Amino acid sequence: MKIGFVGTGVMGTGVINNFLKAGHEVTVYNRTRAKANDVLAHGAHWANSPANVTRASEITFTMVGYPKDVETVWLGPEGVFAGAKENDILIDMTTSTPRLAETLFKRGEQQGVHVLDAPVSGGDVGAKNGTLSIMVGGDKAIFERIMPVLKAIGTQIIHVGSAGKGQHMKMSNNIGVAATVLGMAESMAYAQAAGLNLSDAYQVWANGAAGSWSITNYMPRVLNDDFKAGFYVKHLLKDLRIALDAAAEMQVQLPETVLAEQLFTKLNQEHGDEGVQAIVKLWTSLT
Amino acid sequence: MKIGFVGTGVMGTGVINNFLKAGHEVTVYNRTRAKANDVLAHGAHWANSPANVTRASEITFTMVGYPKDVETVWLGPEGVFAGAKENDILIDMTTSTPRLAETLFKRGEQQGVHVLDAPVSGGDVGAKNGTLSIMVGGDKAIFERIMPVLKAIGTQIIHVGSAGKGQHMKMSNNIGVAATVLGMAESMAYAQAAGLNLSDAYQVWANGAAGSWSITNYMPRVLNDDFKAGFYVKHLLKDLRIALDAAAEMQVQLPETVLAEQLFTKLNQEHGDEGVQAIVKLWTSLT
Repeated sequence: MKIGFVGTGVMGTGVINNFLKAGHEVTVYNRTRAKANDVLAHGAHWANSPANVTRASEITFTMVGYPKDVETVWLGPEGVFAGAKENDILIDMTTSTPRLAETLFKRGEQQGVHVLDAPVSGGDVGAKNGTLSIMVGGDKAIFERIMPVLKAIGTQIIHVGSAGKGQHMKMSNNIGVAATVLGMAESMAYAQAAGLNLSDAYQVWANGAAGSWSITNYMPRVLNDDFKAGFYVKHLLKDLRIALDAAAEMQVQLPETVLAEQLFTKLNQEHGDEGVQAIVKLWTSLT
Repeated sequence: MKIGFVGTGVMGTGVINNFLKAGHEVTVYNRTRAKANDVLAHGAHWANSPANVTRASEITFTMVGYPKDVETVWLGPEGVFAGAKENDILIDMTTSTPRLAETLFKRGEQQGVHVLDAPVSGGDVGAKNGTLSIMVGGDKAIFERIMPVLKAIGTQIIHVGSAGKGQHMKMSNNIGVAATVLGMAESMAYAQAAGLNLSDAYQVWANGAAGSWSITNYMPRVLNDDFKAGFYVKHLLKDLRIALDAAAEMQVQLPETVLAEQLFTKLNQEHGDEGVQAIVKLWTSLT
């Protein structure tokens, strides 16, 4: 199948290489061309704008940084909509706002093209290994049509509702990520102050009722002084802000997420390009 | 071995029955005698005070509700210290304050008896099945001497340091429990407001980076309207208050735990005898 892909960052690169491995023809665009070298070396074609990606493709994916990048890439004069042909399928995999996903869906309807929001979780490792979790919002029949394509890049692929619901699901997920990461940091701060051995603590927490994916995956990195980003601080902060905006619209209060946003805002000032496990660094300044 | 046990609540009952199964002779006391019927039917002997429990035993365990109960049971005129003989081993399994654990240890030294603090995690199921996680503070040689006895009731048994460190480890653990339970509640509140299917959400969260023991174990109960206590709201609240007091002494700030204490205080007003998963009930009143 002719697949288009806009955004060849760490996540996009893994996804595109899995599409290529599955035998698809992939045309790509990225703001910084050098970051596309990896996928071009694996056989992807280059197009010099998002519109030209769409022109060459039946299904076009986008996976960029922030909601404002999504707007540019979709709605700009050389954006994906500008090159879309009737019945094309356009899919945004960026973690972005539910509201923007709804807007893009409606704009697609006017133009006779099908739009899905399909944010992912599973990080760079999941993207590379084709084991992403994909949460899809939009028309269910369209979702079913692209299911065979998505199977090349993910293992848990769920249609979660109408346009925007994929983004809502991702927000609800990352509210949980922030809470568990914060819990890890606070347990560690307490344990350290109390003079406990942190390897003992890992043993107790990871195997008991305090356990979480964050403890199992991030705490060993912290103990090895590894703050490299699997999931960037700046990206989790973006997500928390989107979640709080959406929650305000829905009139639901999220006191824990409000606190997480405050703490990650503080952390982001100096550690935005590190991984979310860097949250533990905040405790030296809090005490 | 002659074992004494003060406190035949849900947890104590499970532990005592496992001691009996392992062939130990167990003498018990409980403030409300009727709650000892189960273990008496399984062959435990009754004593009419903590002191008489200790008089009949080489090792005495206590597992009661609150730190003030520990004080009464240990330091009262008919408390365990009153009946203790030289070289006896006395072990408090109540989740209590690190400070009190240190006090009891020192009092034991004056009297020539060995005191350990050994709070557990794993809930009623772990107590019943003999799969508790046990965190032991105090003299390591004494810990090693009772290890064979502890193996009848737990699977993960760790000596974590000097007197009080067992309690500190438990505090650091329950800080994590509160954070994950709170994260679950907030993710659920968001998901519900966004009109997501909560079974889909469970699928995504439990199998991804938002996963936690709380999601896996408590969310299905919430979805089944099951708020029965495995871990009482009133007990987690007690633990959070102990943790915050200890943190204040150690001059470490725990903003997430401060928030959790506030929310569980509110929840405790009407739902103290339910399980911690009842935290989700707070969101209807917050919105």
